[in-house]
Amino acid sequence: MDNFTFYSPTYFVFGKDEENKVGHYVKRFGGSKVLVHFGGGSAERSGLLNKVRQSLNAEGIEFVELGGVQPNPRDGLVYQGIELCRKSGVDFILAVGGGSVIDSAKAIAAGAVYDGDFWDYYEGKVVTKALPLGTVLTISAAGSEGSGDSVITKEQGMYKRATTGEALRPKFSILDPALTQTLPAYQTACGITDIMAHLYERYLTNTKEVEVTDRLIEALLLTMIKEGPRAVADSNDYQARANIMWAGMMAHNNSCGVGRTQDWTSHNIEHELSALYDCAHGAGLAVVMPAVFTYNMHHDVMRFAQVAVRVWGCQMDFEHPEETAKAGIKALQAFLTSIGMPKNFAQLGAKEEDIDELAHKCCWGDVNTGTTGGFVPLNEDDVKAIYKLML
Amino acid sequence: MDNFTFYSPTYFVFGKDEENKVGHYVKRFGGSKVLVHFGGGSAERSGLLNKVRQSLNAEGIEFVELGGVQPNPRDGLVYQGIELCRKSGVDFILAVGGGSVIDSAKAIAAGAVYDGDFWDYYEGKVVTKALPLGTVLTISAAGSEGSGDSVITKEQGMYKRATTGEALRPKFSILDPALTQTLPAYQTACGITDIMAHLYERYLTNTKEVEVTDRLIEALLLTMIKEGPRAVADSNDYQARANIMWAGMMAHNNSCGVGRTQDWTSHNIEHELSALYDCAHGAGLAVVMPAVFTYNMHHDVMRFAQVAVRVWGCQMDFEHPEETAKAGIKALQAFLTSIGMPKNFAQLGAKEEDIDELAHKCCWGDVNTGTTGGFVPLNEDDVKAIYKLML
Repeated sequence: MDNFTFYSPTYFVFGKDEENKVGHYVKRFGGSKVLVHFGGGSAERSGLLNKVRQSLNAEGIEFVELGGVQPNPRDGLVYQGIELCRKSGVDFILAVGGGSVIDSAKAIAAGAVYDGDFWDYYEGKVVTKALPLGTVLTISAAGSEGSGDSVITKEQGMYKRATTGEALRPKFSILDPALTQTLPAYQTACGITDIMAHLYERYLTNTKEVEVTDRLIEALLLTMIKEGPRAVADSNDYQARANIMWAGMMAHNNSCGVGRTQDWTSHNIEHELSALYDCAHGAGLAVVMPAVFTYNMHHDVMRFAQVAVRVWGCQMDFEHPEETAKAGIKALQAFLTSIGMPKNFAQLGAKEEDIDELAHKCCWGDVNTGTTGGFVPLNEDDVKAIYKLML
Repeated sequence: MDNFTFYSPTYFVFGKDEENKVGHYVKRFGGSKVLVHFGGGSAERSGLLNKVRQSLNAEGIEFVELGGVQPNPRDGLVYQGIELCRKSGVDFILAVGGGSVIDSAKAIAAGAVYDGDFWDYYEGKVVTKALPLGTVLTISAAGSEGSGDSVITKEQGMYKRATTGEALRPKFSILDPALTQTLPAYQTACGITDIMAHLYERYLTNTKEVEVTDRLIEALLLTMIKEGPRAVADSNDYQARANIMWAGMMAHNNSCGVGRTQDWTSHNIEHELSALYDCAHGAGLAVVMPAVFTYNMHHDVMRFAQVAVRVWGCQMDFEHPEETAKAGIKALQAFLTSIGMPKNFAQLGAKEEDIDELAHKCCWGDVNTGTTGGFVPLNEDDVKAIYKLML
């Protein structure tokens, strides 16, 4: 295990109806003039935004609002949010929504107190200062409610890039599983896939002797395998959604990823797909992961065999461990298909003729240097071959 | 799953030689006049205290020292520490040691800024204010480095009692697995047993639909089963100790215990043993757990069968689940014996003729009300019967 630091100072408030206390928590964490940031009409239609407004009003907290965050959130709205914060003297950002809303809120929080262009942070500059922010989560997926990470798409060139920093960790996050019950089955399944991808990205490591984090990752994958299909089959299954919601946070606050190298190949390769085709991130990952794992499997067959046996219940083939490794990848793909995820380029709306462009952007992009991935450094030809496996 | 809040704002610094940065972290978290609190001579002999002094001096931080914390830490030294803090204007407590030292430091931290008797907190008053504290951990066991809990023994009457409060969470904790390499095998095994007990106390719940926390607890138990015997067999096995150290923190910071009722019967029954005989807490737990589980098994056979199958690798007996449940308890006891833990009263130095007194104190004590335990409320006769199972 490698040396590391771990810091997760977010106050988590978990359970039914807890969103009604949001004003109390904004006040507790020092907010007096709030930007309420949200997505499309669903938070309005469901009545959630009204609950938030009532709770803020009840605490005498002033606020301004900025809606319109899209999936794969764009830099354009971030610039608007930064201007609004400065004009209105905002001292606290409240994100009401899923990962896209929270990521957009984080970008605004950092940009509002930075003299330069906020995009600098998405080109490698470390975020050390940001307005405090809180979240009311409406979808279990990104894990952004417990992380210091944010991903934004630059409209010019459609580059999707990430940043990270302790200052971006939410001060509080309200997680009410009931708020996710209005999600369509497809979006629920996309969230489940994203959570599982966060786990695989950490599992695929070159660090030895990491039993504790291996076991924790496996525990969360096993949880998704039990609870995922229940949530997809019955959107009102509160208990399945509760288990998924805590697993989604734990999958990405990094307590199960410390002290080890991580991969993030699948995310990097997927980001180009959702940037170009605006497909759901989780759906993209469902197509990308089996291809990446098949391509990288021979780098460490025993690691893939381990997850196959411990998570997917495959029998270990001691004479041919690579058969066990393959069986685990097949089991993952079958699971994702069973919850309604796509399995190839066509189902995703992606096109074979774009592969050269996708691979080039992934490896070179605007900030990269010719390779991608932490488990096996892949060059442009490797990435092309992986995209071809998805056809 | 039940509603809950979870807040773990401790900054963890993990890995070899990180203790040399302790001065930096004390300063970062606002300390300018420090009480360095420690146990017996081992921190001095190993050179650890000198490293701490050098690091504090290098940062220009003043400090006073108070050593002498015993296992099962006593109120007498806490009162001394409180007086020393007030006399010297201490604004930060640094615990250098294991759970006993950290628990004693927490009591001092709370007592130093409280007008009444600090023992009030151990009789039910909630701690809302305390001096900030940091830790340099030297044994993986209590999990106090990541929790808001503290256990102190009152010398008059030898009552061992616990308190908890967010204000008692350490600001930072330095976890260097190499510092635990000087521990004798017996103490290493006691720590392993304590960690496993923290996991079982959370596993034994009456809350339904808690797959995510069940799986996380199982993951940490599986880690102990793999890494525990390695650490006991070779005290210099850094990697085994690193895995145990992170597991020990995760086992008790409560991320795997949220949203569910917990038990704590074994701890309550053990506390009377270590208070009366001054035996090691972990050794006491090794004797207590199999007895408690055997006594309580029929309350929820399937829960005991689940841990038997998932953690201990027992075959599920679908016709006779109670046989599987029993096999899991036997496997736990065999494991604890294999790492050198005692299995009965005699090996612990406990006496049959004290059983009435032990059971009475456990159920009535100075603050209890006739029963103990969250999984099955046990009265004095139940507890007597459990002690008799340990003969």
